[in-house]
Amino acid sequence: MAMVCLSDFEAYAKKYLPKIAWDYFAAGADDCITRDENILAYKRIRFRPRMLRDVSVMDIRTKILGSEISFPVGIAPTGFHQLAWPDGEKSTARAARAMDTCYIASTYSTCTLEEISAAAPGGLRWFQLYIHRNRAASQQLVQRAEALGFQGLVLTADLPYTGKRRDDVRNGFRLPPHMKVKNLERAFEYGLPPNSLDPSVTWNDIYWLRSLTRLPIIIKGILTREDAELAVKHGVQGIIVSNHGGRQLDEGPATIDALVEVVEAVRGRVEVYVDGGIRKGSDVLKALALGAKCVFIGRPALWGLAYKGEKGLQDVLRILQDEFRLSMALAGCASVSEIGQHLVQFSRL
Amino acid sequence: MAMVCLSDFEAYAKKYLPKIAWDYFAAGADDCITRDENILAYKRIRFRPRMLRDVSVMDIRTKILGSEISFPVGIAPTGFHQLAWPDGEKSTARAARAMDTCYIASTYSTCTLEEISAAAPGGLRWFQLYIHRNRAASQQLVQRAEALGFQGLVLTADLPYTGKRRDDVRNGFRLPPHMKVKNLERAFEYGLPPNSLDPSVTWNDIYWLRSLTRLPIIIKGILTREDAELAVKHGVQGIIVSNHGGRQLDEGPATIDALVEVVEAVRGRVEVYVDGGIRKGSDVLKALALGAKCVFIGRPALWGLAYKGEKGLQDVLRILQDEFRLSMALAGCASVSEIGQHLVQFSRL
Amino acid sequence: MAMVCLSDFEAYAKKYLPKIAWDYFAAGADDCITRDENILAYKRIRFRPRMLRDVSVMDIRTKILGSEISFPVGIAPTGFHQLAWPDGEKSTARAARAMDTCYIASTYSTCTLEEISAAAPGGLRWFQLYIHRNRAASQQLVQRAEALGFQGLVLTADLPYTGKRRDDVRNGFRLPPHMKVKNLERAFEYGLPPNSLDPSVTWNDIYWLRSLTRLPIIIKGILTREDAELAVKHGVQGIIVSNHGGRQLDEGPATIDALVEVVEAVRGRVEVYVDGGIRKGSDVLKALALGAKCVFIGRPALWGLAYKGEKGLQDVLRILQDEFRLSMALAGCASVSEIGQHLVQFSRL
Amino acid sequence: MAMVCLSDFEAYAKKYLPKIAWDYFAAGADDCITRDENILAYKRIRFRPRMLRDVSVMDIRTKILGSEISFPVGIAPTGFHQLAWPDGEKSTARAARAMDTCYIASTYSTCTLEEISAAAPGGLRWFQLYIHRNRAASQQLVQRAEALGFQGLVLTADLPYTGKRRDDVRNGFRLPPHMKVKNLERAFEYGLPPNSLDPSVTWNDIYWLRSLTRLPIIIKGILTREDAELAVKHGVQGIIVSNHGGRQLDEGPATIDALVEVVEAVRGRVEVYVDGGIRKGSDVLKALALGAKCVFIGRPALWGLAYKGEKGLQDVLRILQDEFRLSMALAGCASVSEIGQHLVQFSRL
Repeated sequence: MAMVCLSDFEAYAKKYLPKIAWDYFAAGADDCITRDENILAYKRIRFRPRMLRDVSVMDIRTKILGSEISFPVGIAPTGFHQLAWPDGEKSTARAARAMDTCYIASTYSTCTLEEISAAAPGGLRWFQLYIHRNRAASQQLVQRAEALGFQGLVLTADLPYTGKRRDDVRNGFRLPPHMKVKNLERAFEYGLPPNSLDPSVTWNDIYWLRSLTRLPIIIKGILTREDAELAVKHGVQGIIVSNHGGRQLDEGPATIDALVEVVEAVRGRVEVYVDGGIRKGSDVLKALALGAKCVFIGRPALWGLAYKGEKGLQDVLRILQDEFRLSMALAGCASVSEIGQHLVQFSRL
Repeated sequence: MAMVCLSDFEAYAKKYLPKIAWDYFAAGADDCITRDENILAYKRIRFRPRMLRDVSVMDIRTKILGSEISFPVGIAPTGFHQLAWPDGEKSTARAARAMDTCYIASTYSTCTLEEISAAAPGGLRWFQLYIHRNRAASQQLVQRAEALGFQGLVLTADLPYTGKRRDDVRNGFRLPPHMKVKNLERAFEYGLPPNSLDPSVTWNDIYWLRSLTRLPIIIKGILTREDAELAVKHGVQGIIVSNHGGRQLDEGPATIDALVEVVEAVRGRVEVYVDGGIRKGSDVLKALALGAKCVFIGRPALWGLAYKGEKGLQDVLRILQDEFRLSMALAGCASVSEIGQHLVQFSRL
Repeated sequence: MAMVCLSDFEAYAKKYLPKIAWDYFAAGADDCITRDENILAYKRIRFRPRMLRDVSVMDIRTKILGSEISFPVGIAPTGFHQLAWPDGEKSTARAARAMDTCYIASTYSTCTLEEISAAAPGGLRWFQLYIHRNRAASQQLVQRAEALGFQGLVLTADLPYTGKRRDDVRNGFRLPPHMKVKNLERAFEYGLPPNSLDPSVTWNDIYWLRSLTRLPIIIKGILTREDAELAVKHGVQGIIVSNHGGRQLDEGPATIDALVEVVEAVRGRVEVYVDGGIRKGSDVLKALALGAKCVFIGRPALWGLAYKGEKGLQDVLRILQDEFRLSMALAGCASVSEIGQHLVQFSRL
Repeated sequence: MAMVCLSDFEAYAKKYLPKIAWDYFAAGADDCITRDENILAYKRIRFRPRMLRDVSVMDIRTKILGSEISFPVGIAPTGFHQLAWPDGEKSTARAARAMDTCYIASTYSTCTLEEISAAAPGGLRWFQLYIHRNRAASQQLVQRAEALGFQGLVLTADLPYTGKRRDDVRNGFRLPPHMKVKNLERAFEYGLPPNSLDPSVTWNDIYWLRSLTRLPIIIKGILTREDAELAVKHGVQGIIVSNHGGRQLDEGPATIDALVEVVEAVRGRVEVYVDGGIRKGSDVLKALALGAKCVFIGRPALWGLAYKGEKGLQDVLRILQDEFRLSMALAGCASVSEIGQHLVQFSRL
């Protein structure tokens, strides 16, 4: 089976992963409308490609928060990578380093931050944080991440409670006994309690985080201009426009649609990223044309892991990279700096 | 079979109810376009969820016409509950009381108002009225309802004649011999005559009703700003935006679309409710964001009854309640009073 | 099999007619887009129904060009009724008279005008004319129709050449040997030559027709405001907005959409009718709300004939009549004069 | 099997061509969205047909760059005709001449320009050029074409690199060993190297081409007003609005949509043509109504070749010609000069 595009990896993962793991990764909230809209919304955007521009030398590198990456696609934080591949997040870290891009490790990793760091020393990594009712646990995580050389702190803002994912309820989803949410073992000696996340978190907690670390703070889960304005006002360094892959509030906006509104509100004061629905290189080009500095992929990374671990994820990233470079060239852009809003329009449909 | 969402109850009811009963409950007029639009119209509305608001303490209670209910979902008037469950409307009344919400009992109940009252003393109930050519019969019903402690009178305005429901015609639908429209047995000693409803009813009959009872009058079936204005002018206390579940005039507006226009016309002078198409908790949130004080569910209540009578209907209400609470929290609202139009937008599609 | 709505007759006809006849009646030009759009366009129109209006006495009668009919639905001109039922147009004439409405007999009838007249003396009938290269033949037809008591002359304007109906080409459609285009046997002694219609007809030929007859002239096939203006200017008495059932130029407008533009241009100076896509009584209500004085049905009449001849067509008309009356009542109109544009709106979809 | 419309030829070709050849001709880039949109976009355009205009004498001839053709449909440049029919481009040239229209021969022909010229002396032909890194090779081609009597030079602007056509990757598409890109055998003695095209081509290369030949230069692949303006400014004689049949950048605009913008920008200064999505005669009429001087067909020509070589392609052209003439007549136009924007409108859908 030739792996030509990302949906080939999706088909593979659906076929070979245990159903309970596939369902967990694929799950969206309620009717999965937002999950699917994330993809469909890209298809409503049309390119306005320009011709006869010298595209013989292509430069697809970019920088996020000052760090150069090989192309504007990073790995979004997703949990439980051991469900996809035995080495779990260690493989993810190695693949990201090999491809010279950024990996956002999740609080809910099945490897410790230490294991992740050791697996791929020198790789560009950010750490994704949920704030627990047990604030000390969160504080420890932040400080471990900083000490280990993680270069950004990503606060997830859209999960005061977990969304209702029907298949997970039907399957009675839980981690197999041999996997653990290892990062939290210190804080929660007797296992992770239900409802451990703190639903009382507010914007003021950005100041608390700021007091804990010198890392740049990126807020993830913003979908409106109002919240984008608040994020800037509270001093974050970056915003990830995200709806948690459609796993939280169903029938919120597709992220690529929300990106437009957020970019407009932010007016360049902080970097804006987007995740959700990226399935081919031209989706990356659209996101950048609409103002994203970089995109992050979630499920496609898991499909890559499920295919062949570190190597499979590299395959996924390499395909995206080739497709992104080609779509840039065909749209008439030789470097990322030439990408702009003039390249796209919203279709009538 | 796990009952996770309302469509699980729908599937159960479709499988286990006699076809003639399922068809009767499911029926829409003509091509069933409005019946289906009631649901589809919700899917064209997108949330604009807000992040990092303290949602640790959630308050989902509300009041309708001064009475507090546990959450803004009541039971719409539908006929013939014995078709769904042997105890019929007695089970409905018990479930509504157990869940601390309002039940609008139909003129076409298969239990008497007295049986309904006795089944769940103290429950909040309104009575739904059709005006018969035999005005004395209607007058008796109103006065019985008031005497029994019903706290509102709901006048159905959209049924001068019964809509054409093709499946009912094909099935030759009629009640099984052991079921009766019991509330009308006194008035029509020899059975309910065909065409017993009065198609000459006009707005002036609101004054007649007013002369019969001190109960607040709620008018059900309003779909335009013009009629909303007339309703307010004629002194009703509430309006239920409804198209009778798409069972009367096919190709009228979806109720959630009509709600916007009615709310705008009413300008807060009376309470506005809506029924039709509610299938998950986030639909309730959308209706409230667009100005409804409360929603009422019709078919989902019948599916709950068909599943396990009183207990099944409680299951349905509890799922809606949990989903509504969760969607509020994920949209950034800790209490019903924080819900507003800023939470939603109509999608381009 | 219960015949509850018009699609029941369609299903019957499709099952029992010879394929070549079904295909001929069902045919649309090219991709059949306009044929299908005629129906779909009705579904994009939503009612704004009004409540609590006295609809106890319903009056659905109307007048076309001064003649009263029992309800605003007539029989559009279609050819070759013997393909549907042995008695052909004689049955059509009897059914129309029995239902007290207007029948537009086609030039391409398989019965003579004399046979049609004799079958249902006193019925309201108009005669549909194609102008032949042999002008004398057309002149004779007009004068025979007038002499036989036909009360209107309908000039078809949209067939300078026959549209390309792929199935007819594949089937090699031609009338069976025992059927004839009887009205033209006098003019064309040796059979109807191919290309007998005159593609050079222009607006000035209206004056020629006017010189031949005192009958009111109705022009059929108008789809634009420009042509509507020209029709009025050339002195016609009525306009039928029609695209020939989608059998001529594919991808022209749906007739109900074109009606709006034509009615606006005509400003009440002549009567405007519409055909194409009428499948239920509420479609008639929509057409009248948008300014049509009356609608004409084509294929549904043929399905009725195919079902049971004269009786089957009466069934079709009676169903439409009942549905029209009911939809009027449910929309809050007690008489045709109360129908207006306020009753409808175009849906967002 | 009767060949009634172009999709009959498509079905034939899909059935009888080797899968690898069918896939190559049918291929679109990535998700094939633009390939399919080229067709769908035509279906969103509605005619506004005019009636009672004398269409007894139809004139469908037109001129492109001064040369008269029998109707405004030419043959777009496509590669590898021997994959469709053994005689390859020789058959194409003969069919185009027989039908008195223009054939744009591709650089990637499987016959030499000399063979093509000899096959149909006197036919109107343009030559399509890719600019190779080996500029001398391109220069030789231009000069051979001019010497052989080709009357226009078509520069393809949208292929700095080849688009990603998944099926070709899966199939490992390559020409069978007995076929050759014959025009380039002189320049590349040891076979065509990969990446032989020059991705550094810019607008200034138009001046270089101009220095090589006196032929009119037509630029192919323009999709935006900005590039249309640049094309005029750099002195081309014509523009072909094209997205390479959806084979290059997926999710660019449908060509018929881009045509509107290009025609507006060009303001009649040069001739504008369009290719992509033409499947019936009325599509040609739409393109002309929106300002195209002529259209070119790609895949339908290949289907015709696959059916019966030269004769099959003539069949395709003759069907298009008949359909175009008929649709003109039914829209009320007797000659190409009467076609204008008033004939069309974009549908609400």
